[in-house]
Amino acid sequence: LLKNSETASSQYGVNIFIVGLFLMFAVYLKIMGLTESDRLMFLVILMLIQVVWMIFYICVSDRKKWAPTEKDGHAGARWLRCGIVLFAITTLVMHALKLGYFVGYSECIPIIEGIYPVTHIVHTFFQVYFLWCHSKDVIKSFKTLERFGLIHSVFTNLLLWASAVATESDHQLEEHMERLKSLGFTNLTLTYPTDIAHLECNCSTNLCKDFKKGIYYIYPFYIEYQILASAMLYVLWKNIGNKTSHLHHKNKLNFDGVYVGCFLGLIVMAATIGIVAIYLLNIGRSKTNSEAALSIYYFYSITVLGLMSIGSLLGLVIYKTEKTSVFKEKSPAVKLDAELLVGSSIGSWIISWGSILAIIFAEHHPTYTWYNLPYSILVIVEKYIQNLFIIAYINHTPQNNLKASHIEIPIETGQVSVPAESTDFTTSKGIEVQQQASMQNQQSKKDKTHRPPADRKNNNRKLVLKNLTVLLFLCNLSLWIPPAFGCRPQYDNGLEATVFGIMPWIVLIDVALPFSIFYRMHSTYSLFDVFCKI
Amino acid sequence: LLKNSETASSQYGVNIFIVGLFLMFAVYLKIMGLTESDRLMFLVILMLIQVVWMIFYICVSDRKKWAPTEKDGHAGARWLRCGIVLFAITTLVMHALKLGYFVGYSECIPIIEGIYPVTHIVHTFFQVYFLWCHSKDVIKSFKTLERFGLIHSVFTNLLLWASAVATESDHQLEEHMERLKSLGFTNLTLTYPTDIAHLECNCSTNLCKDFKKGIYYIYPFYIEYQILASAMLYVLWKNIGNKTSHLHHKNKLNFDGVYVGCFLGLIVMAATIGIVAIYLLNIGRSKTNSEAALSIYYFYSITVLGLMSIGSLLGLVIYKTEKTSVFKEKSPAVKLDAELLVGSSIGSWIISWGSILAIIFAEHHPTYTWYNLPYSILVIVEKYIQNLFIIAYINHTPQNNLKASHIEIPIETGQVSVPAESTDFTTSKGIEVQQQASMQNQQSKKDKTHRPPADRKNNNRKLVLKNLTVLLFLCNLSLWIPPAFGCRPQYDNGLEATVFGIMPWIVLIDVALPFSIFYRMHSTYSLFDVFCKI
Repeated sequence: LLKNSETASSQYGVNIFIVGLFLMFAVYLKIMGLTESDRLMFLVILMLIQVVWMIFYICVSDRKKWAPTEKDGHAGARWLRCGIVLFAITTLVMHALKLGYFVGYSECIPIIEGIYPVTHIVHTFFQVYFLWCHSKDVIKSFKTLERFGLIHSVFTNLLLWASAVATESDHQLEEHMERLKSLGFTNLTLTYPTDIAHLECNCSTNLCKDFKKGIYYIYPFYIEYQILASAMLYVLWKNIGNKTSHLHHKNKLNFDGVYVGCFLGLIVMAATIGIVAIYLLNIGRSKTNSEAALSIYYFYSITVLGLMSIGSLLGLVIYKTEKTSVFKEKSPAVKLDAELLVGSSIGSWIISWGSILAIIFAEHHPTYTWYNLPYSILVIVEKYIQNLFIIAYINHTPQNNLKASHIEIPIETGQVSVPAESTDFTTSKGIEVQQQASMQNQQSKKDKTHRPPADRKNNNRKLVLKNLTVLLFLCNLSLWIPPAFGCRPQYDNGLEATVFGIMPWIVLIDVALPFSIFYRMHSTYSLFDVFCKI
Repeated sequence: LLKNSETASSQYGVNIFIVGLFLMFAVYLKIMGLTESDRLMFLVILMLIQVVWMIFYICVSDRKKWAPTEKDGHAGARWLRCGIVLFAITTLVMHALKLGYFVGYSECIPIIEGIYPVTHIVHTFFQVYFLWCHSKDVIKSFKTLERFGLIHSVFTNLLLWASAVATESDHQLEEHMERLKSLGFTNLTLTYPTDIAHLECNCSTNLCKDFKKGIYYIYPFYIEYQILASAMLYVLWKNIGNKTSHLHHKNKLNFDGVYVGCFLGLIVMAATIGIVAIYLLNIGRSKTNSEAALSIYYFYSITVLGLMSIGSLLGLVIYKTEKTSVFKEKSPAVKLDAELLVGSSIGSWIISWGSILAIIFAEHHPTYTWYNLPYSILVIVEKYIQNLFIIAYINHTPQNNLKASHIEIPIETGQVSVPAESTDFTTSKGIEVQQQASMQNQQSKKDKTHRPPADRKNNNRKLVLKNLTVLLFLCNLSLWIPPAFGCRPQYDNGLEATVFGIMPWIVLIDVALPFSIFYRMHSTYSLFDVFCKI
């Protein structure tokens, strides 16, 4: 029955998603006489259903507080929950701005554009409360209802994400058309109908333009919020009825000796902010300015990506030489992390392969387009190696952590947990493993009282790894900034658009780039996780 | 290290796939000066690499025949391997025809169009031999190399599949344009440039036209072959280094008492063939003929889909009332089956939701378009329920089968296997389970000598289920025929194309319909599996 409701709910979710996407495209392509209001109405209904379900869930779980609830230690880590609160705050600000915009134009835009931000604010409040308190839950009762509620929430958030991405792309497109003109690609520019419907009205508060500008600066954060929320809800859904009690890691953050990594990383970050400023100031001004901006951006990216590739490779080499026992994590949270990393890399791989093929087959090659080739190759290589590095370490628990965690478990769930690898025991092996486990228990108790002096070589290795991880963490955070805030050379250089045609290339970028941006954000999270585990 | 090579190889495969798809689209959209020859060259190289790897693998595994190799009982069932041989034969015929066509036109088409079918024939031979002999292997040595080889094979087959789907869609499109004209949608038809390059040449064998016609009739089978082969290779890839030894089912096929299901199913199949003939003869002739053909097709489909929905629902109800212990299968083959079912349903769900929205928002409603609404809704509902039914039963092993399989295991792999559910044992539970297992072993040996008289009620239930499964099996097989052989009302009725615009709708159908066709084929396989397990 368990398996059954899993399939039933996922099928329900997929269908909701299909309908939502259809409505979105229909409005976007202006077909079927559908208006923006219909689409917003659909989203409002979805959000309200989710809110009702969350209230129900919170009430039920508050009632049976006396009962011991199982928790998945991997899901909903504290920094992840803090992250979602921060992003949620920007979301609230954005919808407050939208509400302000609506108030200004309230006479000429439909009432639903006011209802939508209000509902979204309520929805955000409940969702953040829900994720803060319950993101570690392993649900055992009302399974079918919870499954449907959670999958409904997952796909509602995904639809909100898709809608945000579409709005953001539309807005970016207008800017890029201006930029392409400066490089001489007049034949490429599309005349885009900017929505002038509201211009007939007068804004009653005189702040509407500022509100609109403000909204677009917050979009990158809003997009991250939606995707993070759906990932956390998905983990909750996957955890329903899970029987394996996972090992619980409680590693303290220790920033000793990571000065080199921090220093290098902060330099990269400062450089990034500088480059983004230079890029945005120069691009679209004149042909020389645009070309200079593109060249500088490529040089900078090649340097950073090269540094990151070498760093990840070094980390992988250290991993291969290490001889600690690796054990397979079974929590859906860890598995999802790895899948999201590889899955979201596909976005930028598609763009990069497109660029590579475009450079090879283009007829004209202005000088700055040649820098695109090493850049695109490095994007592919860097993600390839970095994924290997991250996945190697998030699947990995060093020996001493393993021992420590073995003591914690009995206290928490009243069960002795055995390393996941030993689940495929044979008759005789099974008993052996249990003996080992109990011996380890005793031994690790001894360890706590007088620990042997730490191995110097091992410590050095750890220090190198920590520095590498911090460096990669800051580099990934840096590389998130340019595309999220409008530095998108894939649009601006005009090369790929000439080869593939402007519309196919824009559609491709619009679909793939959000994943690429999400990748940078998600890899920072994963690297933080790696840092905690080293 | 295991996990690492898994990620590394899957990332490699994804990148190969991206390049292949880019080449395909570039040729299709006639950009970058790429020709069909370049694309074929790429595929030939990929196929040759796969052949070299398969030869290496076969040689190595032949050498160590004395060593006990572990096998996954779920993977590569005999009927699956027989199926692939049958489809492979059609593939060989197709490429022989292609070769014949090349010989006829050899003077004016590039040599690569002759090399390609020859390579494909060699590739098919090796791949079928490889899958026949090794599809159950659980690879333990040379893991990294095998992983890369297998993932290379998976994505080579997927690229061949994508290429076949594109060619097939292109061919279908020409026919549908003719049909739309007959319904009065002259404004919708695209003028498509049919490739007239070869018409300048004379066919030296006078058979070229027949060859070309023959090739298009075989395409549906060829497409199934590619997707089946990649699924089997993917299971092999997933099984590498797997440590769980799965229970092995050896159920004999027993067709006693399934006359009702067979009879009804064969009626459906005969009706389908009749309807397809009527459809193909009438569609595109005149407005009345076309409308009649569409109406008849919708009526027939509504009846069959209604029947199937009721059947699946009945099966699900029986499943819920049954009290046999369900145990979770851990083989990747079973998990893949379920994921493929839900995944490939998405294709037809997208089409159906598109149709539903189109009907709701269309301006003009000719009578025959109204039949489209219940048809589309039933397509969604039927797949929803049928998936639940199939997934419930492929995850399920009734008690008596479980006992039987426990005896088999020690003989085959020298290990006592414990039901997968008990892997999350606690210290005391672990020993209990093993005692239970050995007790079950002894008990089932007793059972074999004098079995208790079979429960009459249980037998009746089984008989109903078997009849249902046979009926669903034949219905799914029937529903595979119309879209595979050119009955595609989604193209022909012109309704959706008017609402969404002809190009967006064609692109959507071209992407989604192959999955929908694959669904029917795959559900037949899964229902066969269900039949064996009941």
